[in-house]
Amino acid sequence: MGFRQLWESLLPIGRARSGDGWLRYGWSPAELACRDWFAAQAKERGLTVHTDGNGNLFAWWGDPDAGDAVVTGSHFDSVPHGGAYDGPLGIVSGLLAIDELRARGATPVRPVAVAAFAEEEGSRFGVACLGSRLLTGELDPVRARALTDRDGVTLAEAMASAGADPTRLGPDPVLPRIGAFVELHIEQGRALADLDAPVAVASGIWPHGRWRLRFTGEGNHAGTTRMADRRDPMLTAAYTVLAANKEARLRGGHATIGRLQPEPNATNAVPASVSAWLDARAPDQAGLEALVEAVRVRAVERAGRDGTEVTMTAESVSPAVTFDPALRDRLVEVLDGAPVLPTAAGHDAGVLAGHVPTAMLFVRNPTGVSHAPAEAATDEDCRAGVRALADVLEALACR
Amino acid sequence: MGFRQLWESLLPIGRARSGDGWLRYGWSPAELACRDWFAAQAKERGLTVHTDGNGNLFAWWGDPDAGDAVVTGSHFDSVPHGGAYDGPLGIVSGLLAIDELRARGATPVRPVAVAAFAEEEGSRFGVACLGSRLLTGELDPVRARALTDRDGVTLAEAMASAGADPTRLGPDPVLPRIGAFVELHIEQGRALADLDAPVAVASGIWPHGRWRLRFTGEGNHAGTTRMADRRDPMLTAAYTVLAANKEARLRGGHATIGRLQPEPNATNAVPASVSAWLDARAPDQAGLEALVEAVRVRAVERAGRDGTEVTMTAESVSPAVTFDPALRDRLVEVLDGAPVLPTAAGHDAGVLAGHVPTAMLFVRNPTGVSHAPAEAATDEDCRAGVRALADVLEALACR
Repeated sequence: MGFRQLWESLLPIGRARSGDGWLRYGWSPAELACRDWFAAQAKERGLTVHTDGNGNLFAWWGDPDAGDAVVTGSHFDSVPHGGAYDGPLGIVSGLLAIDELRARGATPVRPVAVAAFAEEEGSRFGVACLGSRLLTGELDPVRARALTDRDGVTLAEAMASAGADPTRLGPDPVLPRIGAFVELHIEQGRALADLDAPVAVASGIWPHGRWRLRFTGEGNHAGTTRMADRRDPMLTAAYTVLAANKEARLRGGHATIGRLQPEPNATNAVPASVSAWLDARAPDQAGLEALVEAVRVRAVERAGRDGTEVTMTAESVSPAVTFDPALRDRLVEVLDGAPVLPTAAGHDAGVLAGHVPTAMLFVRNPTGVSHAPAEAATDEDCRAGVRALADVLEALACR
Repeated sequence: MGFRQLWESLLPIGRARSGDGWLRYGWSPAELACRDWFAAQAKERGLTVHTDGNGNLFAWWGDPDAGDAVVTGSHFDSVPHGGAYDGPLGIVSGLLAIDELRARGATPVRPVAVAAFAEEEGSRFGVACLGSRLLTGELDPVRARALTDRDGVTLAEAMASAGADPTRLGPDPVLPRIGAFVELHIEQGRALADLDAPVAVASGIWPHGRWRLRFTGEGNHAGTTRMADRRDPMLTAAYTVLAANKEARLRGGHATIGRLQPEPNATNAVPASVSAWLDARAPDQAGLEALVEAVRVRAVERAGRDGTEVTMTAESVSPAVTFDPALRDRLVEVLDGAPVLPTAAGHDAGVLAGHVPTAMLFVRNPTGVSHAPAEAATDEDCRAGVRALADVLEALACR
C-alpha cells in the first residue's frame, strides 16, 4: 500500500463537519476510531498490538520481550481544528517504513515497534504529552486521573467510558524494553522550505510550558455600571495578552495567549472573571523564566490599576531537551548529511529523551503553518520521510 | 401569600448547581419551568393565561377583549449566572399587586394583566427584548426564526421543541388591546441607595446596542511560529477591549467587551479568529454613534499593524427612549413625589414605549450590582415595590 492510499484511509476520521481541520481529542470517539484504524493496520501487517496502562499503543514487529527495541511513532490526537499531519504522519510513516523494510528484505535483529501515544496535544485534559509523561513516571497517576476536560469529565471517567482501566495509569514495563525511540513529525516552521531539503534531524527542544492566568473582578451590568465603578477583569486580561506578546518580542522567546474564557461571557455583563492560558517558550531555561516572570509582573501591575486580582499557575513545564548526540549523529550519517534543526514545540520524543536514547525526524512543511488546517506536506516529501525512517530503522535494528 | 413565600416558590428554578446565580435562558427547560410556575400562579388567582405568537405570556384579570388594558410585568429569562431579581421581580410584584388590589376591595374598570416577555436578555439568541420586539413588529419574524444559539439551535427549533409554533412569530392582536404598560424592575445601579428611597419612576433609557466584532488572522502553532511571522487576531481583540474602555471614559458613555470567543481557543495555537461583542451606551444618539465609530477606527488601525482583519456588525441597536411624560408625571403624583431616574439598560418597556404609553418603576438595589448574583433587594423594599405598583394599577385601572 502506498502513502496516498494509507493516508486517505485515515483522513476522514475526526474531520470537522465544516471541513475546517480535524477534531481528534484524546479518548474522544474520533481518537478511539483512529486507534481502531491502527489495530486494523497492525493486524494486516501481522504486528501484535500491545496497549500499555496509559492507553499508549505499540504495534510490534518481533518479540517485545527481547528488549532493546527500536520504537518509532507519534500521536493521533489533534488540537481543536488542527491539521492532518501533526501526529498521524509519524504513525503512518512508521507503518509504511516497516512495509519498506520488508520490501527491502531486511531482517530485524532488534524488535521494532510503531507507537501511538495518548493525548499528546493536551487539548482535552490540559496536560501535553499525557501518555508519555505517565509512561515515564513524570506525571503522578493520581493527579492524572483527576484531570478534567471542559465538560468536567475526568480522565479516569473518559478512559472508563472507552473501556480502559484508569487504575493502570503510571510507569509501564514497556519502557525498559525500549532501546531507542525515533519520532517522525511534520515540521512546524519553514526552515526546511528555506533549506530546500525534505527531511531534517532534530537537535533539541526549547524549554516551554503552559501557565493558567486567572483574573477576577466584579461581575456587573454592562449598561448601568459607571466606568469608574468597574472592576473589569477583561481589561487586565487584554493588557496581559499584549504584554506577553511584547515581552516575547523583546526577549527573543515565544509567548501566546490563544485560549481565553470570560465568565459569564455575556454581551451585557462586565465579566466576574477571565481565565487565560499563557504558552511560553525560549531558547534556554533562564530566558523562559525571565519571560514568564515579566508577564506575571506586568499582569499584577495592571490588576492593581484595574481593581482586579490575578493568579498565575504553572499547568505543565517542560525543561530544555537535547536529543542523544550519538543517535543524532548516527541519523545524520545514515541520511547523508541531513540538516539539523532545533524546535520550540514539545513532543512525546522530548519526554522519552529523559529515559531512552531518542531522536526526531522532521518532514518539510511548505506553508510553515502548524496547529491549523493550512499545515501541509507534499506526498513526495512524505514518501521521502518514510524512506528516511526506513533507512534509520534499518541502520539501528537490522544490522 | 406574602412576598417571601411567593418569591421562594420561584427561586429554585434555574438556579446554577454551583449556587452561582441563575441560568434561565429563553426557551430553556429552566425558563419553561418558570412559565409553568406562572400558569399555576395565574390559575390560583383565577387569571386567564393567554400566550401570544411570540411566547409572551399574559395573565388577565378582566376581559382582554374590552381593550385599553393596563398591563404590568417583565421577563423570567436571565443572563448567564445572573441575579434573581432582574426580570422575575416585575412578574412576582405584578401578581402580588393584584392580590393587594383585591385585598383593598378595588374593582378594575379597565382589564389588568401581568405579562412575562420571552428572551429579554438576549443571552441565548443574541437579540435583546426578542419577545417584545416581535410583538411590536420591530423584529422581522423571518430573521428571528433563523437566529441561532451557541449550539447552533435556531429559535424556530427551540420553540418547536417547547411545543410552540414558530410560524406564529410576529405582531400579535394583543398589542392594540394594551392601553398602558408599567414595568417594575430591580434598579441596576446605586442611585436609590444614595437617595435613601425604595422606589423610583423612570424618565427614559439611554440609546444602546450590541455590535459583533470579528477579528481574523492566521491560525498557527503557538510554539514554533516566530513572533514576527504571526498574524494574531487575539492581539487586535485585546487592544480593542482596552480602546473601547478608554473611549467610553473619554466620552461619558459606557462600553464593554464582556463576551469573547477565540477560535480554536487552544493553549498552543495562535487563534485563527476571535469574535468579540461590544456593548455600548451613551446619553444621546450622537454620542453613541461617535463612541462606536471611535472603537471601530481604533480596531481597524490596530488590525493594520497586526496583519489581521476586523469587521463590525450591529446585532441590535435601540434608540433613546423617553417614557410617556404624562404617565410618568401621574406615577410620580400617585407615589407622592417618588424620585425620577434615567437608566442605561434596555427593557421590554423601552420597546413597548414606541407603541403604547409606557412607564417603569425601579426598586432599590443596595449593592448596585446587576447581571450578577450580588444583585440584591430587601424584602421590605420589594414589598414597598408591590404597594407602589398596586397604587399605580389602582390609579390607572380602578377609577
